[in-house]
Amino acid sequence: MSYFNNINKINYEGSTSTNPFAFKFYNPEEVIGGKTMEEYLRFGVAYWHTFTEDLSDPFGSGTAIRTWDKFSGMDLAKARVEAAFEFFEKLGVPYFCFHDVDIAPEGSNLRESNQNLDTIVAMIKDYMKDSKTKLLWNTVNNFSHPRFVHGAGSANNADVFAYAAAKVKKGLEVGKELGAENYVFWGGREGYETLLNTDMKLEMDNLGRFFHMAIDYAKEIGFDAQFLIEPKPKEPTTHQYDFDVASGYAFLQHYDLQDHFKFNIEANHATLAGHTFEHELRYARVNNMLGSVDANQGHPLLGWDTDEFPSDLYSTTLAMYEIIKNGGLGRGGLNFDAKVRRGSFTPEDLFHAHIAGMDSFAVGLKVAQQLIDDKVLDTFVEDRYSSFKDGIGLNIVEGKTNFHELESHALGLGEIKHQSGRLELIKANINQYLLRAFAGE
Amino acid sequence: MSYFNNINKINYEGSTSTNPFAFKFYNPEEVIGGKTMEEYLRFGVAYWHTFTEDLSDPFGSGTAIRTWDKFSGMDLAKARVEAAFEFFEKLGVPYFCFHDVDIAPEGSNLRESNQNLDTIVAMIKDYMKDSKTKLLWNTVNNFSHPRFVHGAGSANNADVFAYAAAKVKKGLEVGKELGAENYVFWGGREGYETLLNTDMKLEMDNLGRFFHMAIDYAKEIGFDAQFLIEPKPKEPTTHQYDFDVASGYAFLQHYDLQDHFKFNIEANHATLAGHTFEHELRYARVNNMLGSVDANQGHPLLGWDTDEFPSDLYSTTLAMYEIIKNGGLGRGGLNFDAKVRRGSFTPEDLFHAHIAGMDSFAVGLKVAQQLIDDKVLDTFVEDRYSSFKDGIGLNIVEGKTNFHELESHALGLGEIKHQSGRLELIKANINQYLLRAFAGE
Amino acid sequence: MSYFNNINKINYEGSTSTNPFAFKFYNPEEVIGGKTMEEYLRFGVAYWHTFTEDLSDPFGSGTAIRTWDKFSGMDLAKARVEAAFEFFEKLGVPYFCFHDVDIAPEGSNLRESNQNLDTIVAMIKDYMKDSKTKLLWNTVNNFSHPRFVHGAGSANNADVFAYAAAKVKKGLEVGKELGAENYVFWGGREGYETLLNTDMKLEMDNLGRFFHMAIDYAKEIGFDAQFLIEPKPKEPTTHQYDFDVASGYAFLQHYDLQDHFKFNIEANHATLAGHTFEHELRYARVNNMLGSVDANQGHPLLGWDTDEFPSDLYSTTLAMYEIIKNGGLGRGGLNFDAKVRRGSFTPEDLFHAHIAGMDSFAVGLKVAQQLIDDKVLDTFVEDRYSSFKDGIGLNIVEGKTNFHELESHALGLGEIKHQSGRLELIKANINQYLLRAFAGE
Amino acid sequence: MSYFNNINKINYEGSTSTNPFAFKFYNPEEVIGGKTMEEYLRFGVAYWHTFTEDLSDPFGSGTAIRTWDKFSGMDLAKARVEAAFEFFEKLGVPYFCFHDVDIAPEGSNLRESNQNLDTIVAMIKDYMKDSKTKLLWNTVNNFSHPRFVHGAGSANNADVFAYAAAKVKKGLEVGKELGAENYVFWGGREGYETLLNTDMKLEMDNLGRFFHMAIDYAKEIGFDAQFLIEPKPKEPTTHQYDFDVASGYAFLQHYDLQDHFKFNIEANHATLAGHTFEHELRYARVNNMLGSVDANQGHPLLGWDTDEFPSDLYSTTLAMYEIIKNGGLGRGGLNFDAKVRRGSFTPEDLFHAHIAGMDSFAVGLKVAQQLIDDKVLDTFVEDRYSSFKDGIGLNIVEGKTNFHELESHALGLGEIKHQSGRLELIKANINQYLLRAFAGE
Ligand SMILES: [Co+2]
Ligand SMILES: [Co+2]
Ligand SMILES: [Co+2]
Ligand SMILES: [Co+2]
Ligand SMILES: [Co+2]
Ligand SMILES: [Co+2]
Ligand SMILES: [Co+2]
Ligand SMILES: [Co+2]
Repeated sequence: MSYFNNINKINYEGSTSTNPFAFKFYNPEEVIGGKTMEEYLRFGVAYWHTFTEDLSDPFGSGTAIRTWDKFSGMDLAKARVEAAFEFFEKLGVPYFCFHDVDIAPEGSNLRESNQNLDTIVAMIKDYMKDSKTKLLWNTVNNFSHPRFVHGAGSANNADVFAYAAAKVKKGLEVGKELGAENYVFWGGREGYETLLNTDMKLEMDNLGRFFHMAIDYAKEIGFDAQFLIEPKPKEPTTHQYDFDVASGYAFLQHYDLQDHFKFNIEANHATLAGHTFEHELRYARVNNMLGSVDANQGHPLLGWDTDEFPSDLYSTTLAMYEIIKNGGLGRGGLNFDAKVRRGSFTPEDLFHAHIAGMDSFAVGLKVAQQLIDDKVLDTFVEDRYSSFKDGIGLNIVEGKTNFHELESHALGLGEIKHQSGRLELIKANINQYLLRAFAGE
Repeated sequence: MSYFNNINKINYEGSTSTNPFAFKFYNPEEVIGGKTMEEYLRFGVAYWHTFTEDLSDPFGSGTAIRTWDKFSGMDLAKARVEAAFEFFEKLGVPYFCFHDVDIAPEGSNLRESNQNLDTIVAMIKDYMKDSKTKLLWNTVNNFSHPRFVHGAGSANNADVFAYAAAKVKKGLEVGKELGAENYVFWGGREGYETLLNTDMKLEMDNLGRFFHMAIDYAKEIGFDAQFLIEPKPKEPTTHQYDFDVASGYAFLQHYDLQDHFKFNIEANHATLAGHTFEHELRYARVNNMLGSVDANQGHPLLGWDTDEFPSDLYSTTLAMYEIIKNGGLGRGGLNFDAKVRRGSFTPEDLFHAHIAGMDSFAVGLKVAQQLIDDKVLDTFVEDRYSSFKDGIGLNIVEGKTNFHELESHALGLGEIKHQSGRLELIKANINQYLLRAFAGE
Repeated sequence: MSYFNNINKINYEGSTSTNPFAFKFYNPEEVIGGKTMEEYLRFGVAYWHTFTEDLSDPFGSGTAIRTWDKFSGMDLAKARVEAAFEFFEKLGVPYFCFHDVDIAPEGSNLRESNQNLDTIVAMIKDYMKDSKTKLLWNTVNNFSHPRFVHGAGSANNADVFAYAAAKVKKGLEVGKELGAENYVFWGGREGYETLLNTDMKLEMDNLGRFFHMAIDYAKEIGFDAQFLIEPKPKEPTTHQYDFDVASGYAFLQHYDLQDHFKFNIEANHATLAGHTFEHELRYARVNNMLGSVDANQGHPLLGWDTDEFPSDLYSTTLAMYEIIKNGGLGRGGLNFDAKVRRGSFTPEDLFHAHIAGMDSFAVGLKVAQQLIDDKVLDTFVEDRYSSFKDGIGLNIVEGKTNFHELESHALGLGEIKHQSGRLELIKANINQYLLRAFAGE
Repeated sequence: MSYFNNINKINYEGSTSTNPFAFKFYNPEEVIGGKTMEEYLRFGVAYWHTFTEDLSDPFGSGTAIRTWDKFSGMDLAKARVEAAFEFFEKLGVPYFCFHDVDIAPEGSNLRESNQNLDTIVAMIKDYMKDSKTKLLWNTVNNFSHPRFVHGAGSANNADVFAYAAAKVKKGLEVGKELGAENYVFWGGREGYETLLNTDMKLEMDNLGRFFHMAIDYAKEIGFDAQFLIEPKPKEPTTHQYDFDVASGYAFLQHYDLQDHFKFNIEANHATLAGHTFEHELRYARVNNMLGSVDANQGHPLLGWDTDEFPSDLYSTTLAMYEIIKNGGLGRGGLNFDAKVRRGSFTPEDLFHAHIAGMDSFAVGLKVAQQLIDDKVLDTFVEDRYSSFKDGIGLNIVEGKTNFHELESHALGLGEIKHQSGRLELIKANINQYLLRAFAGE
């Protein structure tokens, strides 16, 4: 049975194609910077947005038309697996990601939920044998059920903490079973609604303990995935403990967890926190904490996580710039934590949206690599900081000076000559690279 | 004497040029949609940002290096005129714009200020004889001097109202003298800091009276420029009366001024008000109120008017889309109400920034025209609304129906079939058009 | 049967009471400014938030514990009516408000939905006979069902327009049947997600036509309620046509509807649009367009409509200041368009929250009236604008002057003396009034 | 000579006073929680806003009327010292704070600047002998001069780094000379405008080195002040490295500086970063990093640092709540980093504003202490987290459990019962405490 029977495998047709079901820029076999696009752009499909999501919003019910919605319960869960692997195959995508509740319905108690999971995990494992699509990461949803109303690992209630731990334990087992490359923690309800009723220290301390126990258990079972924190501000609790990468990094250092985690950085979470996507990537990169990416985009004028499919080529270019400079994402990838708009409710839109996202990152990769190959930014930056290559500058970076020597140096200076930062020229250069990237085709 | 003696006339060199002092996309003679780029893109240089601005910010003093800064007083004003016309000539820009205080220093009283203005206006008029650069619009600065601390046309003090009126009177005379195509009103201090000390009704009524008197005086002296309101929210007063185009339109209608004004829409003011640039353009366009444009951009993560030079090609494309659909801007133009960053302080940066802006709008024009020529959006939109072409839909738009008939119609309907809005596909199409726009070169 | 059987009637116990189920500040019989608090503060309970809402959010399912949730279908609808009137009685609230779908489930087609409505409306009418609680306003929900995915009165599809009209027709009939004082239009999906697929002019024109037909039908059936537009920005469509009061007023004037409508102003919608609540009230008031109020508050750091119960006494004071200055709200009232937080899920919280809101507005009323009685702001404001009482100022406000006379006046002025705006002192005064308001008790 | 000769010493007159030049709530001798208000509320006057600031804004020149403005150069600097100590005396404020450039003009080179500083520091030291007002903290301005256009400790230029170091060296010496209790680092230009030209790693590494050298030098000269980082986002560089307390804490830990610094937390910086003021205080407190406070407030609808005097009693109450819970601020204090509005330009406004701020924090102190004395929040919070006092909860907090035991526990649970978070009731309680705080008077 086919769930997308009017859609064929999506092929690369080049930048002049007018076929809406073809890649225009993503050519999996094209080599960029020594790797194929497919190797570089470790795309993942987010199970929740593509197979479970109904496109409801706070003001209206779901609009999604999905061929599997005639089923319910475990039948629905199984149909989704079939649909998912058909989708992966037709899209040609190397990875997928899921929460436990995306793939299997919760039962009436934890044991039943775990049994449901086991059934579907076995089915997925079976499908994976015949598929090139692997598991980028899995996680558990410790935020949607009312039991997590006041948090999970940072709950006010020890029973909830235990329940959350049991779910993560299972999640780690599932990850190992399916060969997940990473395991993600997004603190959905790990935060507070109001300080007035919150013991912030206890909550954060408990969260630190929770992560240590997760590390211990993964080691115990030999699950060697990269652990990732996914920061997010404001939603759904008013203040999330992992507001942004920096606050997550402060937390990890405080609880001596920094060697066990990296970050999964989502573009829309970055902008909600008041940062650019590339800021979060850079900050993580220079601190050696860049793990993986949730590839999406927000609406700059809306104040919530819109999780749009990435299409802004500036954003994909600057993101890929950081990723290339990072030497790639290692075991991480580009997971489309993105949903089609409520008005884009047909199955076709799922393909349009993923094609748009994959093409946008392919463009970003190509433009970023060209900027790097031509040292457009590097040359400028090196020259800008050249005073730290010798003399007092070298003393500074080598830690061989002090305020006495620096004062002497300063007293001997005339007025300091500055170079322009050339922001406008650099932006024009980037436009030129963007517009020229596919000019030869 | 030259103020930019290391810079030659900026020429179009095409998309492969690596000369930072050349246009890559703006080719003044290239014909798009039946007009040359130069005719379509009626670019203007903002005198204040380019010749008067020192690049200070609230946290630091000016950094700008300007060859005319060795002068002071009226000598400085004259040097700026010389520099300006050299700049216009080298950039090849058809228009400029100014406030009274940009071109001439204020004297110790109104009479002296007017005399200073007369001197410089005469000099500018002289320079304009040998220049192809014309005056897109002028205005007066009724916001910087401490006398306007509590407003100008909406001041709490009748003397201030009179002073503001006298300045606008002079501004209209100057506009007529120099053949301005438009006259702009930006309500710099027309708003309130706190409602607690404000008579909003009196202030708005007075502002309405002020505009009527301005219209009367322009008519009296035969100054036939298009009058423009430039909306802006939040800055510098906490609430500006002309928050956005819609609030300005409400005001104009309430005071029966709507036939005498159009809007000068600034991109960064749009986004500060919570709208996209294209929203403000579209809203003005469909209400027949689109007059002119202040071409710049803001930073999506900063909460104030950054007045950056436009470089975002999505924004310039969607703006040009609206402008083309409007049949052009008529007497209006694209004024670069934009300043180089504080770190871009050399005279060269003034050229880099204008080139970036002009190239960006040239790209926008080209891509928008291709989208229109190929009916990429039009076909989709027409089909989307086709149900209003006949039957009950036609009755609706022709005003020939009522709730009785509509209810009967509704009672006879089964579940309504919807088309997808296809946002993701459309965005991918626009990327493709953008990336292909200069592919043939 | 009782739905709140552990809760007794809420009485006023004064500011020292420690009973969580008592009013501390809202004393319905206390006379303020010549009216009892109950007369002045025409409080309404929002049916949707209090009886239908399950406290789900985009990241989790409902947490609300409601004694009526054991029922379903029409039984649930009936149980809610019983619970509602028990709640109204125990809270002692004079008004309530609803959408059609709050009170009765939709049927499988419009006819069935209307029949369900008729049943429940008859039941409500019956309950109203024995209750002092009346209908402040009703409306219809033309935004939640997938059929309204692309709008209702501004839909791209004529069938949807007809369906929306049929629902409003029914809504007007229901309002008449139940003696509603007002009828509200909130444009839930009247806006656009992207301009790229939108014919804004057709949509707005159709919306204008829709409102005219509604007016005609209300007149036809003799339903004399005040018609109200409730503006809101951003949610749920990216751009809502009624962004704020000013944009709504522009719309009403453009389509010649301004004499048939006033505004229902919601605090949280004001702040989402970048305005203070009191700004929207003042703007509506001075334009004679203030109709009614949705009394809630937002979180200043969150970017969506949180619809919190009002507790900020600054906000309630400044709101009541405008309302008193307006001579009250006429047929309008203070509807608690507010929901308890997801973590406040017990039936008791519904009482706590309404008590908090009612007390907060009672404080606001009392403080505002004292500010007015003592002319704290009035005296300052009158003095501030006194120059418009005679001389050139009087000429200005009487329309008896022109730019010639104003220039003559300005040329004769020395440097203008200004008074301080005294913002800090005024804010301190308001604090003093707030802290003293209940000092005598 | 007097600079405020129409103003007498500000005395406490109680909550019914109508004297605008009296405290209504700040009674320095009143004992709260075992300390006098004066001891608890270690208020400081910010030299820059009160004696140096001219109230210009980006759209207009200064409006401030200051009796010392007839002077210039070093005479002006000396007059400001005289005015300052008169102001401190009349206001009765225990502390003040300054940047180097606030108190003495920069000379034509560093040596001259330092000489100017020495002269004024000697004068201040002399004045301090006869004054009870002490130095809460000093700092140096490494952001306003064009030499810092690209940063100071994080500059791209080693000469600038040296110059900045020399200025901080002098600042530490000045702090020691005047007995400063703290030394503050606000990273005015320590951030980036664009990543495109920035070596973030080198800049942050250098900043870490800079701080270490500062610590070394302070130790060398025996200056034992508490070192403070003042975080701020967005202004003036687009991204500031010390975005908020969490990012500052991540930085300090990464560079092993966490034992040498605490934070100086400014309310308006908190809200610009997307946090509440109380969040930043709480976060610092539970991490033992709360050092001092810049007491001001922002405008919730404006996107920049407005630095308003604190008047919001909710904010002062919640801030004092954290400060009391912290056991006070130790060597820190409440510095009014706040300026009168541009429209509040008279010398009297300086007093009105400080009185407003001091009264507002006095109210906050009193209400917070009553909330603590009555255990209004504590009782609720203790109960909320009581499950961590024994059983599995105790095992969790004592680190004696693991995922196996937690899973076993979870498998044995039925559905978990939750308590309501009672946000609405708590907010009502706080209102009641606020309104009752001065009821007895
Ligand atoms: Co994500
Ligand atoms: Co997201
Ligand atoms: Co402008
Ligand atoms: Co601007
Ligand atoms: Co509402
Ligand atoms: Co709302
Ligand atoms: Co500060
Ligand atoms: Co500040």
